[in-house]
Amino acid sequence: MRTRTGFRSVLAAGVLLAGTASPAGAQSMRDVQQAAEARGLTTADLLAAAKTFTPTGMKDEYIIFSSGGHSGQVFVIGVPSMRLLRTIAVFTPEPWQGWGYGVGEEILADGDVNGQPNRWGDTHHPALSETNGDYDGQFLFINDKANARVAVIDLRDFETKQIVKNPLIINDHGGTFVTPNTEYVIEGAQYSTPWAQEYAPIHEYREKYKGSVTMWKFDREKGRIDESQSFAIELPPYWQDLSDAGKLVSDGYMFLNSINTELATGGIENKKPPFEAGVSMNATDYLHIIDWHKAEKVYKAGKTMEVNGFPVIPLNVVIEEGLLYLTPEPRSPHGVDVTPKGDFLVVAGKLDPHVTVYSFAKIKDAIANQTFSGKDDFGVPVLDFDSVVEAQVEVGLGPLHTQFGPDGYAYTSLFLDSAVARWTLGGPYASGHSEPDWTLVHKTPVHYNVGHIGAAEGDTVSPDGKYLVSYNKWSVDRFFPTGPLLPQNFQLIDISKQGSEMPVIYDMPIGVGEPHYAQIIKADKLDPWTVYPEIGWDPQTQAVDPWAPRPKMERVERKDDHTVEVYMTAVRSHFTPEHVVVKEGDKVIWRITNIERAVDATHGFCVPQFDINLSLEPGETATFEFIADEPGTYPYYCTEFCSALHLEMMGYFLVEPRE
Amino acid sequence: MRTRTGFRSVLAAGVLLAGTASPAGAQSMRDVQQAAEARGLTTADLLAAAKTFTPTGMKDEYIIFSSGGHSGQVFVIGVPSMRLLRTIAVFTPEPWQGWGYGVGEEILADGDVNGQPNRWGDTHHPALSETNGDYDGQFLFINDKANARVAVIDLRDFETKQIVKNPLIINDHGGTFVTPNTEYVIEGAQYSTPWAQEYAPIHEYREKYKGSVTMWKFDREKGRIDESQSFAIELPPYWQDLSDAGKLVSDGYMFLNSINTELATGGIENKKPPFEAGVSMNATDYLHIIDWHKAEKVYKAGKTMEVNGFPVIPLNVVIEEGLLYLTPEPRSPHGVDVTPKGDFLVVAGKLDPHVTVYSFAKIKDAIANQTFSGKDDFGVPVLDFDSVVEAQVEVGLGPLHTQFGPDGYAYTSLFLDSAVARWTLGGPYASGHSEPDWTLVHKTPVHYNVGHIGAAEGDTVSPDGKYLVSYNKWSVDRFFPTGPLLPQNFQLIDISKQGSEMPVIYDMPIGVGEPHYAQIIKADKLDPWTVYPEIGWDPQTQAVDPWAPRPKMERVERKDDHTVEVYMTAVRSHFTPEHVVVKEGDKVIWRITNIERAVDATHGFCVPQFDINLSLEPGETATFEFIADEPGTYPYYCTEFCSALHLEMMGYFLVEPRE
Repeated sequence: MRTRTGFRSVLAAGVLLAGTASPAGAQSMRDVQQAAEARGLTTADLLAAAKTFTPTGMKDEYIIFSSGGHSGQVFVIGVPSMRLLRTIAVFTPEPWQGWGYGVGEEILADGDVNGQPNRWGDTHHPALSETNGDYDGQFLFINDKANARVAVIDLRDFETKQIVKNPLIINDHGGTFVTPNTEYVIEGAQYSTPWAQEYAPIHEYREKYKGSVTMWKFDREKGRIDESQSFAIELPPYWQDLSDAGKLVSDGYMFLNSINTELATGGIENKKPPFEAGVSMNATDYLHIIDWHKAEKVYKAGKTMEVNGFPVIPLNVVIEEGLLYLTPEPRSPHGVDVTPKGDFLVVAGKLDPHVTVYSFAKIKDAIANQTFSGKDDFGVPVLDFDSVVEAQVEVGLGPLHTQFGPDGYAYTSLFLDSAVARWTLGGPYASGHSEPDWTLVHKTPVHYNVGHIGAAEGDTVSPDGKYLVSYNKWSVDRFFPTGPLLPQNFQLIDISKQGSEMPVIYDMPIGVGEPHYAQIIKADKLDPWTVYPEIGWDPQTQAVDPWAPRPKMERVERKDDHTVEVYMTAVRSHFTPEHVVVKEGDKVIWRITNIERAVDATHGFCVPQFDINLSLEPGETATFEFIADEPGTYPYYCTEFCSALHLEMMGYFLVEPRE
Repeated sequence: MRTRTGFRSVLAAGVLLAGTASPAGAQSMRDVQQAAEARGLTTADLLAAAKTFTPTGMKDEYIIFSSGGHSGQVFVIGVPSMRLLRTIAVFTPEPWQGWGYGVGEEILADGDVNGQPNRWGDTHHPALSETNGDYDGQFLFINDKANARVAVIDLRDFETKQIVKNPLIINDHGGTFVTPNTEYVIEGAQYSTPWAQEYAPIHEYREKYKGSVTMWKFDREKGRIDESQSFAIELPPYWQDLSDAGKLVSDGYMFLNSINTELATGGIENKKPPFEAGVSMNATDYLHIIDWHKAEKVYKAGKTMEVNGFPVIPLNVVIEEGLLYLTPEPRSPHGVDVTPKGDFLVVAGKLDPHVTVYSFAKIKDAIANQTFSGKDDFGVPVLDFDSVVEAQVEVGLGPLHTQFGPDGYAYTSLFLDSAVARWTLGGPYASGHSEPDWTLVHKTPVHYNVGHIGAAEGDTVSPDGKYLVSYNKWSVDRFFPTGPLLPQNFQLIDISKQGSEMPVIYDMPIGVGEPHYAQIIKADKLDPWTVYPEIGWDPQTQAVDPWAPRPKMERVERKDDHTVEVYMTAVRSHFTPEHVVVKEGDKVIWRITNIERAVDATHGFCVPQFDINLSLEPGETATFEFIADEPGTYPYYCTEFCSALHLEMMGYFLVEPRE
């Protein structure tokens, strides 16, 4: 439908928009200018538009997987169009996807805390599965800070397959991050609590409150975390914050930073320093350096204690076995980010205007040579800061999180400056850029209050450059106001040119949820199904369900005096059967298959009065059960507009009163 | 930050992009062309980009309020940027907004069906409040097809204030629509069921299954539906479908179309015609013409019966009092849409390639003259089709829904053609356009399967033209695939030029929910608050809460042996108090105020293990209660990234075991 008048011949002609004598196509460029002018756009705006506008049918080059913050979900966004392509329901029930409204309940219930249903989450850090330190496009992991849970999403169908609840901790933050071949999904703790959130008064903080990191073993074949092969490492009761796994030369190590090495316990109501002050008293906090290869061996050797049924390497063993070393880091740090070659770690501390770069080689040397400046209060050796630091680069106020380009550039978000800094790495990265090593190159203002940033494949062994997204927390005046609750603002930044050219080219409001972090993958690494492989597919097992209803086998079958099984199919534009009659009090086991094979031929299926709504993608089968406890006349219908006769795609569920 | 190099001077120069001799600014246009070419964009694409790209800080000109389909929510979208500015939680709990996770439970519970919580909805037709038939920007109404509920949203803060459950019916469709001064919010039924969803076997359909329309009285002062002043009108057991209220000359009337005038009851499993065939057997269905002014008088005169505690004008009274007339309409109709001057009604029937235009003047005459072609099976007089029809215009396959422009154009969605038709009105609209009256002018292809369409203010007394959005149900190949579940596709169409120029200028994926209908209002008609008017504001009452915690009055107060009240404030970056200690089994009444006055200074507040998460906008106060039934150590924290020390904005909720 779209006319594809190329520009090349027009540019070759050398003269454009030259009034009445202009060549074919030139009139259109004049139209472009006039349309832009009518809306008050500048040439810079139009350039940004040319870089981001994505006409009908054109596919995005990159895909962002973004945490949804306290929406509990994950967002899938295209780059450069910055359009929300899909929400993935994870910790919060979502009826469009049928998640928690007839299917998914068992997975959600696996995340229950003390047997209590907790039907929301605070998703923070998504992690794409990796092979050799590079995204492989197979799985996505995401943590729930609020309840210390981790979810597994299968990127064949973009659906949540597993939720595991951490049995030790009640909230997390430093996760999820994966080891370079996705051997483990890492979940660091946050606000210290007693193991298994037992009660302990606040004055027993030092003795009873705990720090930890949990190593969830991932079984790639099964696409599930194997809880029976997972373990945790006890850490001092600091508040572990972000973490990253080593890669290449640093493979086998992981790095966690921390806040509240002061062990502050707050108490503003009693004239004590509030947490915001108490946890920032020391000039430095501690970077945790952990040898997870060795920890895995220690766990397998059984040198663990059991806490709430879960194996934990206790802190004394951690120290004895040399699994953990600390080193000072700028206070109130947020990100610790490993450079593409695995050779440096960059730590940004919110209350220090520098990024601090550590050399992994120097860390190894310091450990080997026991170059300690002392021990912390819990007996953990502290590596001498000067012996492990490589560089400190002053980047601006409130540095938070760092990502990398392919050309020796690093990018750091500046919360207080509301800016993204570009600066140079040194060492083996020096040849990528023309500026001096370890030097600030440029700052691009963003709007406003940037937390994390994401560069295209910017935390892998091979960053792509080209695009960077600033995940801004506040939008203030950027968009038309939608009441007192405003969206966040994802700003797309063009980082394809070196030096100081690094413009914002798109503002994307996030109109639900508060994203924390996101990863950006090249779209061609993903290979999603567009219909399920076979009719009768159960997405929860990723296999054909032998019980799946099939055409000509539809029926309503009474099993016994109080149990009825329904076998139903859905196809444009009818359900078979159209009448389902049961008796009051019956247990109803309802199986339904969408027998469509056409892409996008999704059917919804609802029995609203029993809180059921399914999203049945082509080939999908689902089973749900309920007690028909209230006699009545209940229409069921297709909730996904599927055809011209979609409104007619319905039936009656009749619950006869028992005498 | 953005350079504002205008185009005017450049255009005045008459020559652009003319190689090295080009004037200032020309180089940038060459950059625009090159950037576009690099991505394979055409001039037409770039023109579309110039019309839609909305740089940082530029506000949208129009706002779309879109139903969220079976997500149960409402979406707020900017035009022409087509960016999702905000989701409004309505029927489905949503933790980012704190909806149903500590606040909103009472409102959600008002929508319970038979005392059963139904925590999702299938939102269909949003209706903006009107004054004199024009949007006034004050309120938004939305129905839930799945459970026959209506919600009221206050556009000062874009939050849901009320949900009413229809006591008569179990599903609806022809709603919400408002009368020209929002006297009533109209909710038409859909799939017939016995009153109050009582049980009746399907063979008693004709006798016991009912049709209806409910008139919810709106109290604009209170911003609430007044259930005590509301009533319903019994209709034949057809499936009432879309509806529209008359305006100007037709004020006082409303129009509902219907399907299944065949009274088909399905039964494909018993070799009976499935619903999709059974409800489309007749060549015509019935347009319902209802005099609601007169119905209001009949209701006030008490000529009603009571059904499930709700007043209903029974069908025999409806007929006797002359409240209802029918007239044939093309079979399987969807939209009935009243022209801007209130003088014509346009009906589109999915199985007839025409739109059928009725003259309201002729309808009035036919009623006055009793020009009946007979009565329907239930004794309702049927107006002679030929005496009330004004025109039939062949527009294409699967016409669904019609909107209007300011220039005598009408626009109709064509589901089967996947196109939007532009055609001309006649009569007093003839002078607006240059084409013959009642004639198809143009069809623009859309992708794919368009349901409703929305033109800017296109169903009011003064349509704006300029933009039309095609709410397409399928996207198929338009976007990078996100697994088998694909987004819907909103396509923005530029209707600013007359004749056959009507291009698609933006594709917006809808990555959650399945929108049905949307209204598009001029943004400057909205006047939302950006902070709540005063500190201690309760959004549920839209007034200051006298119990709202205030600075220096924070405390934890034990009321009796088993009740504790918490008075807490939130401000960047701490809660006061930071320790809340209660005893196992205590009832905790927790009040919290966000004392910020800065725009966008929202704080979240969660106590995750008790399923609590609030979104506290500047000034907002909230109260929630729970039983502290499990001893333990529970961090609470701010879930909305608010400041550099946001992570430190936390406290400990300690539940001491009782002996």
